[in-house]
Amino acid sequence: MNPAKTVGILGGGQLGRMLTHPAALLGIPLIILDSGSYTPAKQTLLPPQNTSHLDGPFTSESHIRELAKQCDLLTVEIEHVNADVLEQVEREGLCEVQPSPGTIRLIQDKYLQKKHLAAKGVPVAPFEALPADPTEEDVRNVVQRLGTPVMLKARTLAYDGRGNSPLKEVESTSIKASLEFLGDRPLYAEAWAPFVKEVAVMVVRNKEGEVRSYDAVETMHRDSILRVCLAPLRAGGMEGVNLRARALAEKAVSTLEGAGIFGVEMFLMADGTLLLNEIAPRPHNSGHHTIEACHTSQFENHLRAILSLPLGSTSLRVPSAAMINILGSSSSMDPVLKTAEAAMSVPGANVHLYGKTESRKARKMGHITLTALTDAELFTHLRTLLLAQPDASVSWIDPIAPEPKSGHSHAHPLVGIIMGSDSDLPTMLPATKILDNFGIPYELTITSAHRTPERMVRYARSAVSRGLRAIIAGAGGAAHLPGMVASETAVPVIGVPVKASVLDGVDSLYSIVQMPRGIPVATVGINNSTNAALLAIRILGTASPALTAEIEAYAKSLEEEVLGKVETLEQEGWDKYVERLKK
Amino acid sequence: MNPAKTVGILGGGQLGRMLTHPAALLGIPLIILDSGSYTPAKQTLLPPQNTSHLDGPFTSESHIRELAKQCDLLTVEIEHVNADVLEQVEREGLCEVQPSPGTIRLIQDKYLQKKHLAAKGVPVAPFEALPADPTEEDVRNVVQRLGTPVMLKARTLAYDGRGNSPLKEVESTSIKASLEFLGDRPLYAEAWAPFVKEVAVMVVRNKEGEVRSYDAVETMHRDSILRVCLAPLRAGGMEGVNLRARALAEKAVSTLEGAGIFGVEMFLMADGTLLLNEIAPRPHNSGHHTIEACHTSQFENHLRAILSLPLGSTSLRVPSAAMINILGSSSSMDPVLKTAEAAMSVPGANVHLYGKTESRKARKMGHITLTALTDAELFTHLRTLLLAQPDASVSWIDPIAPEPKSGHSHAHPLVGIIMGSDSDLPTMLPATKILDNFGIPYELTITSAHRTPERMVRYARSAVSRGLRAIIAGAGGAAHLPGMVASETAVPVIGVPVKASVLDGVDSLYSIVQMPRGIPVATVGINNSTNAALLAIRILGTASPALTAEIEAYAKSLEEEVLGKVETLEQEGWDKYVERLKK
Repeated sequence: MNPAKTVGILGGGQLGRMLTHPAALLGIPLIILDSGSYTPAKQTLLPPQNTSHLDGPFTSESHIRELAKQCDLLTVEIEHVNADVLEQVEREGLCEVQPSPGTIRLIQDKYLQKKHLAAKGVPVAPFEALPADPTEEDVRNVVQRLGTPVMLKARTLAYDGRGNSPLKEVESTSIKASLEFLGDRPLYAEAWAPFVKEVAVMVVRNKEGEVRSYDAVETMHRDSILRVCLAPLRAGGMEGVNLRARALAEKAVSTLEGAGIFGVEMFLMADGTLLLNEIAPRPHNSGHHTIEACHTSQFENHLRAILSLPLGSTSLRVPSAAMINILGSSSSMDPVLKTAEAAMSVPGANVHLYGKTESRKARKMGHITLTALTDAELFTHLRTLLLAQPDASVSWIDPIAPEPKSGHSHAHPLVGIIMGSDSDLPTMLPATKILDNFGIPYELTITSAHRTPERMVRYARSAVSRGLRAIIAGAGGAAHLPGMVASETAVPVIGVPVKASVLDGVDSLYSIVQMPRGIPVATVGINNSTNAALLAIRILGTASPALTAEIEAYAKSLEEEVLGKVETLEQEGWDKYVERLKK
Repeated sequence: MNPAKTVGILGGGQLGRMLTHPAALLGIPLIILDSGSYTPAKQTLLPPQNTSHLDGPFTSESHIRELAKQCDLLTVEIEHVNADVLEQVEREGLCEVQPSPGTIRLIQDKYLQKKHLAAKGVPVAPFEALPADPTEEDVRNVVQRLGTPVMLKARTLAYDGRGNSPLKEVESTSIKASLEFLGDRPLYAEAWAPFVKEVAVMVVRNKEGEVRSYDAVETMHRDSILRVCLAPLRAGGMEGVNLRARALAEKAVSTLEGAGIFGVEMFLMADGTLLLNEIAPRPHNSGHHTIEACHTSQFENHLRAILSLPLGSTSLRVPSAAMINILGSSSSMDPVLKTAEAAMSVPGANVHLYGKTESRKARKMGHITLTALTDAELFTHLRTLLLAQPDASVSWIDPIAPEPKSGHSHAHPLVGIIMGSDSDLPTMLPATKILDNFGIPYELTITSAHRTPERMVRYARSAVSRGLRAIIAGAGGAAHLPGMVASETAVPVIGVPVKASVLDGVDSLYSIVQMPRGIPVATVGINNSTNAALLAIRILGTASPALTAEIEAYAKSLEEEVLGKVETLEQEGWDKYVERLKK
C-alpha cells in the first residue's frame, strides 16, 4: 500500500464527496478540481498538507494540467470531461489517468458506445445514427427501419432523461417537437425496448483486467430520473436473471480499457432476455446502496481499482436493501430536510445529504439507504419513506410497495403455504393464524403435484428468487406435493401430512417423510399445520434475533397456559374440571 | 430538523473524526477545537463557511469560550476536558453543553463515578478511596479489607491501563513499585474481579431521558489495551447475558445527566453476574463496529441525541461482527499500512485509518471492522486478520480464533448433531459427511433425554447464544431427544428416527413426528441423517445466497448422477447391470 499516491478527481459533486470517505479511511490523498471552494466533495476531505483543492471548471485544460502536476493519478466523477486533454496529459507522461481517456471518450458519445458494444456481441436494442441537422425526412427513414415507438437520443451530454425524446407516432408535429427539444446536438435513434424492468449492475475492473460485479439491482424511474433502487434484483418467476445480468455487465466492461468502477444499465424483457442500455465510466446512482449494503462500496472499490490495491468483496452484507433519492422540489431546502428527518425515524434507514447549498426542482440533494433482514421488512419501511417524499402519490407508491391486505397473499412473502386441494384448506388455516400472530408475511395458494404439475414446478423454481425462506406444503393420501416441490427448490420445505378418508393419515405421513437421500422434507405431525408454521418461524428466526426472542416468549406463554390449567384443576377439582371439558 | 445548529467538539482525534462523517451525512455543521491544524478530525470536515476549526488545547478556557461563541452546542470526544469552564459557559447561557458538565466531572474521577453508581444500586466490585499521598501502611489497611489481588487505580486521567497497577501480594517492594508507577495522582483501590469475560455496552440517551442500548460486545485486551471486540456477545452456556448487560448499562446511564452516547464497561463473572467497571461519556472504542454493523452508528446516534433528533435504531444489521484495533508498533508507519493492506484482501473487512501523521508504539492508528453472515465465517477471517498484526503470536490468537480440527467439534458451530447413545453414531455419521462437503461448521456430541436430562437441557438452552442455527437429533425407540430439545430452544430441531432392534423404526418415527401443537420437530426419514444434514443446510441457506447456489448445484449433481446411470443401463443392458449391482 502506497499512501503517497495522490489522486486528482475531475468533478466535486456528490459522487466525488462519496469518494472522499473511503479515501480518508484508506489514507489516500485527494485533490479535487471543480468550480467553487465549497462544493460537496471539497467539504469532506482536506487536500494533502501544503496543497489545496483547485477552483475551476473540470473541462479547462489549464486546470487539468495544474491538477496533473500535483497528482500521481487522475480520475473522474463525471464523464462530461475533456477527454482530449486527459489523453494528452497521459501521453506526455504528466500523470496516469483511470479509466482510460479513450474509454471516457467512447462512452461520451452514446452512439459510438452502442456501436462498440454491438460489435463486441453485447445485445442492445436496434439503433441507427441520424445525419447532422436531421430533417423530418431523415427521421421518417430511420423510423421505417426501427418501427414505432422510437427514442430519439442526443449522442452526447445527456443524463437524467434530458437527452431523450420518445416518438410514438410518425407525425410532423411530434417529429418537429422532438428535434426542437433535443436541440442541435448530434442525434441517433433507438428502437423502443418494451422492458418489464430496468436493471443495473455495478462492475469494478482493475488494471490487470480482473472484473468483479455487484448483485444486480432493479432501478425505478419517475419522469426519467432514478428514484428507487432495489437490491438484490428480484425477477419474480424468471430464472437466473441476477447472474445473467452480472455476466452481461462483466462482459461489456471487459471490452473497455482502463480501471475503475462502471455502472451498467440494462433492460429486462418479458421473455427474460437482457438488453444493454448504457454504461457510465464512474460511480453511479444505482450503486449508492453499496455503501451500507455491501462489504466494499462502489466508491472504495473505484479507488482500490485505480490504485492497484486488492479489489474488495462486492457481496451484499444484508439480505435486502433499497436506495431512495432525495430530490429538490423547489429552491426551498425545507422539503429536503423534512424528507431527511422523516427517514431518521425509520429503522434501517441511513440519510446521506450531499451538502449542496442550493436546492432546485429535480436536483439530487441526497439519498436514503435502507437495509433490512427481509424483503417484507424492506418494503414496509420503503412505503413509509416514499410516503414522506414531497411528491408522494399513492398511484406511484402502491405498485412499488403495496399495503398488505388481510386474508390475501402478501406481496413480499417469506413463507409460502401450498396445498394440493381446496379440501386441505381447513387443515392448513391454523398455519395462517400462527404466522399472523407473529407478523410473518406469507402467501397461500393451491397447487397440485398431480393435477397442476407445471404450475407446481413454476412455483417451486421461482421460490428462491421471490424471497421465500420456507414452504409449507400440505397433502393427503399419496401426498407427493411436499417432496416434489422440494425437488425443484433449495428453500426448506415443510410437509404437513393431511389425514385423508382412509388409513388415518399414515399413508400421507409415510409418503411425505420417507424421501430418498438427497431431497429432504421437514415433516410434522398429521394435520399439524400449527407446528409447520412454528417450524417456519424457527427457520426465519435463525436470521433474526428479534424473532428468536418472540419464539422464546411464545414457549413461555405455552408453559404459563398449562400452569394456569394446573391451578384451575387444583381449585375446581378434577370431577368438575372434566365436566367443563366435555362442554 | 434544524440544519443551522452548529456543534463544537472538544477534541480532534479519531473519535472526532468519526463524528464528522455522520455530521456531513446529516448536514450538521461542526467546529473542532484541538491543537494543530491537521488533526484526524479536522481533515475530514470543513467548518461551516466563513468559520474555521480552532487551534488550541481543548482544556484552555479562552479557546473553549471562543468555540462556544461560534456554536449552539458543545460536546466532547474525550472526557479529560475542563468541566469547570464548560459548566460556566453553560451557566452564563453562552452555549448548551452535552453531555452535562456535571456528568463529565463525575466520570473524570473514577472513584466518585464508582461511588455514585454504587449509591444508585449498580453492582460494582468492592472499592475504597486511598488518602492523599498514601503510605505503604495505608495500602496495607485497604488490602486487609479488599483482599488480594487488588487493583490500585488513579482516580483521574487514566486510560488504556496507564492508571492501573495490580497488586498480587502485600509486599513492601510491590506496594512501593505500584505507588511509584501511579505517581502523585489521587488513588483508590478496587478488589480484583475474577471475571470470565469483559463486556461493553454502548448506550445513547437523549435530553428527554430516552435510552437505547446496542447489543453487548465482548472486549479483549492485551497489555491493558483493547485489541478485539466481538458483537454480539456470545456468553457460551450462560443465559440472557446480552439482555442483562444491556439492562444494567441502561440503568447506569439513566442515573447520569445529559444527552449523548456512553460506553459502559463491565465484568462478566463465572456465576453469570455482571459488575460495572466504568463509563465513558462519549463514543467508545468498543462501539466502532457500529459504523458498519448497526443500523445507526454510535457516532451518528451521539449527534442525534445531543441535537434532539430522533434516536436511530441500535440493531445489528449483520449477524456477526468484530473490530480489531490497528496499533502503532514503532515510529514507523510501515507496519500500520501493512496491516491495513492485508485486511483489504479479507472479505467483509473494512479498514479505518485515522489520518495520524505519526506512529508510536501502542498508539491507536486505525481499526478494522469485520462483518459476516455467521460466527464461523467471522472467526475464520478474524484469524487471518490477527495473524497479519505485527505482534501476532499463536498463543494469543489460538484462544480467540482457533483453527478447526477435522473429526472434532468446531469452536463456532452452526449445526449441532446430537444423539441419545453412541450406538446411534454410525447412523448419524452420514450427516457429518454432508456438512463437511458443504463446509458447514458443526459440533457432534452425545446427550440423552433419559440418561443425561440435565446435560440435554443445558445443551438446548445454550444453543441460541452459542450461535447454533439447527440441531440434528437422532434417537431410537421412545425417541424423546428431538422433542425434548425442541422444548428448550428456539433453534429449529431436525429429528432423525433411528431404527431400533424391533418395530422397524416406526416407533422412533411416530415418537419424533407426533409432537404436540406448539413445539415443532422437523422429522426426516428413518435412519436418513443425510437428509437431516441437507435440511440443516437449506435452513442455513435461507440467510446465505452463496449457500443456496451450492444447494442448487448439489441437486443438479444428483440429477447428473442418475442420468449417468441411465446411460450405463442403456449401454450394458439390464441383465449385466443388475449383476454388477449385486456385487
